[in-house]
Amino acid sequence: MVATHGGFCFGVKRAVDIAFKAVKNSEPRPMFTLGPLIHNPQVVEQLEREGIGVIQSLSEIGGGKGDPVVIIRSHGVPKGTLKEAKERGIEILDATCPFVKRAQSIVESLAGEGYLILVLGDEFHPEVQALLSYGDGNATIWDGTLSQGVKKVAMVSQTTQPLENLKRAAREVVESLSRDLAEFRVFNTICESTTTRQNECASLARKADLMIVVGGANSANTGRLAEIARSIQPRTYHIETEDQLDPGWFEGIKRIAVTAGASTPDWIIERVVARIVEKTGGSIRYGAGN
Amino acid sequence: MVATHGGFCFGVKRAVDIAFKAVKNSEPRPMFTLGPLIHNPQVVEQLEREGIGVIQSLSEIGGGKGDPVVIIRSHGVPKGTLKEAKERGIEILDATCPFVKRAQSIVESLAGEGYLILVLGDEFHPEVQALLSYGDGNATIWDGTLSQGVKKVAMVSQTTQPLENLKRAAREVVESLSRDLAEFRVFNTICESTTTRQNECASLARKADLMIVVGGANSANTGRLAEIARSIQPRTYHIETEDQLDPGWFEGIKRIAVTAGASTPDWIIERVVARIVEKTGGSIRYGAGN
Repeated sequence: MVATHGGFCFGVKRAVDIAFKAVKNSEPRPMFTLGPLIHNPQVVEQLEREGIGVIQSLSEIGGGKGDPVVIIRSHGVPKGTLKEAKERGIEILDATCPFVKRAQSIVESLAGEGYLILVLGDEFHPEVQALLSYGDGNATIWDGTLSQGVKKVAMVSQTTQPLENLKRAAREVVESLSRDLAEFRVFNTICESTTTRQNECASLARKADLMIVVGGANSANTGRLAEIARSIQPRTYHIETEDQLDPGWFEGIKRIAVTAGASTPDWIIERVVARIVEKTGGSIRYGAGN
Repeated sequence: MVATHGGFCFGVKRAVDIAFKAVKNSEPRPMFTLGPLIHNPQVVEQLEREGIGVIQSLSEIGGGKGDPVVIIRSHGVPKGTLKEAKERGIEILDATCPFVKRAQSIVESLAGEGYLILVLGDEFHPEVQALLSYGDGNATIWDGTLSQGVKKVAMVSQTTQPLENLKRAAREVVESLSRDLAEFRVFNTICESTTTRQNECASLARKADLMIVVGGANSANTGRLAEIARSIQPRTYHIETEDQLDPGWFEGIKRIAVTAGASTPDWIIERVVARIVEKTGGSIRYGAGN
């Protein structure tokens, strides 16, 4: 069984398209992504072959680098980075996912209305770092505790969190309603494709005897898919490419399911599926069925 | 043990003061409360002796009634009633509790922002009826179910609900966060004195062998206190006056606790306590202690 909702999500596909089109349509000039465009080493290598390098910080762009274009990846960047680019006259090609942008603008407007903003997500993930920056000092990562005396609290989520995590966190804040805490506001900023993908992943895991999750080892959303699958089907493997498939895994296994993270291109998924078919002689079916 | 937080709450005390002062300071003119000023028959009788009658609707005020003043009780009235009074030139003395007013203005502003407003409370209670009216057709009583396709939901509470009810209801809405339901907002509009009174009532019930809750049989908040007490100490009696005390209740009982609803005047509580002391020979202690 191969997931119908695995692989590139809307925002990632859009960012990759923006990058490849930029190379094709522009005069030759230096082009960089700020951090790897997506958390998939195979795609990053492809971009490098096209002449799009990776920088970690705007400070790497000096006077000697011509007239560079900097591509903002789908995760977005902290507010200050865009400001710095503007001040220094660096041209920006903003491929921030529209769903991430929406979350950023919610955080920004909440900050202006006096809320303490709780962000549910992986503290060190670039999307979350960017989200926090839009809180202008009034946003903090949700760690399960609420400081005393806060009157208005709002919660947003990293776009790739499982909806269950957001519900659990929101329930925890509801428990804190008190004489002091007079208002709580929660925004479901999880993008649709995350929820669909994660639900399908769980359905597949319930039906499969073995589950393969394909995606960058450094991809948080792929890691989360593997976690979801593993909690249902312990025989779950997170791999980056078909070469990591171990034929020994398939012995005595009937139903194998494959899904992939939002930053995994179709061609990698296809190679993984082809290798499984080759090794097991099985047939392919799409979706989790009924 | 006698509750230190029993009896008149801020809003009720204020409404009663407003009514008695109005009689004292005004030229003789017809004066009415719209509905009984508070849910306590003994106080309503007192007001009648002072010349403040009760009408159920503005339609009862005709041309023949002189130049009447209508007192709005602490529960507030539907938006349309205030409008009607204004249009008909009827003088209004608004004794709506400031905490209720706050809840009304929250509902009004949410309605203007496109929220579906869920009101937690007793559907037929005048405070709730008034609150709903401020939603301009976008407010509904919370009955545990949420219609499909709603994008933004907000919840407010009748000011006298137990905080636990609001938390439970809010948790239920959090469970409905979905692809559709993108925002949920909850306001703790429960007034402080309700929470303090109910917490103290529970503490007293845990320590007492018998619990007396004093207040109008038609007082919802007194009824709720009795429920809270009864869930802890089944030997709980809800009475209006000392004459309803049955000396048989006290046989073999050591610790008796007394609390009272927000619409119960001190003099009634004092009479109840005096009668208990008379019948049992016990002594009085205030508060639930440690």
